[in-house]
Amino acid sequence: MKNQTYRMTMLFDFYGELLTERQKEFFDLYYNEDLSLSEIAENSGISRQGVRDVIVRAEGVMQEVEDKTGLIRRYLQMQEHVKALQDAAAELRTINYRQYEDPRIDAVADTIEKAARALRE
Amino acid sequence: MKNQTYRMTMLFDFYGELLTERQKEFFDLYYNEDLSLSEIAENSGISRQGVRDVIVRAEGVMQEVEDKTGLIRRYLQMQEHVKALQDAAAELRTINYRQYEDPRIDAVADTIEKAARALRE
Repeated sequence: MKNQTYRMTMLFDFYGELLTERQKEFFDLYYNEDLSLSEIAENSGISRQGVRDVIVRAEGVMQEVEDKTGLIRRYLQMQEHVKALQDAAAELRTINYRQYEDPRIDAVADTIEKAARALRE
Repeated sequence: MKNQTYRMTMLFDFYGELLTERQKEFFDLYYNEDLSLSEIAENSGISRQGVRDVIVRAEGVMQEVEDKTGLIRRYLQMQEHVKALQDAAAELRTINYRQYEDPRIDAVADTIEKAARALRE
């Protein structure tokens, strides 16, 4: 299961609050805290298979919402545009540094970089 | 209910696919197609109050997901940064038009505007 940690972390970031407390706890311990199924089972007093079922169910709940809404997919597409903005700001700084040294152009580059950073969050 | 159409349209855009077919249909007819509760009731053969209940329940389902995930709230915050990007691109065009007439700077402004448009969708 852990080979899909990036996808799982993103699901949890977007939709984690839709889970029950137990689903949230086990999912977080497994994917974010990197505990094993057995470790979580020991700490919580239920079987390894029981822990696994809770985590698989939690993934199912979140993946279903994503399949219906596509909000993570849209977010990832957005990040490609954010990358383009960062490249554009860097290009603008290079042109300005080499040729014009205009503080207004640097201010524009600052604004673009600040917005791009905020859009990555 | 219709004084909240903007909020409802946004909920529906983000979370409409989480509704049942009937919830989706009534919600869409009421808020997007601007039919009255009575008109929807007549067309569907159930009471006006029945239609109202379906729509109120649909709103409840979507608002609950939004309250838990805050994805619309995050989207609206994002749009403020997109506005800043559009203003920055306009500023850059003005500086360039008045003083430098550098096609590379216009190309940077193009890139920013294109990304900002994509981020509004």
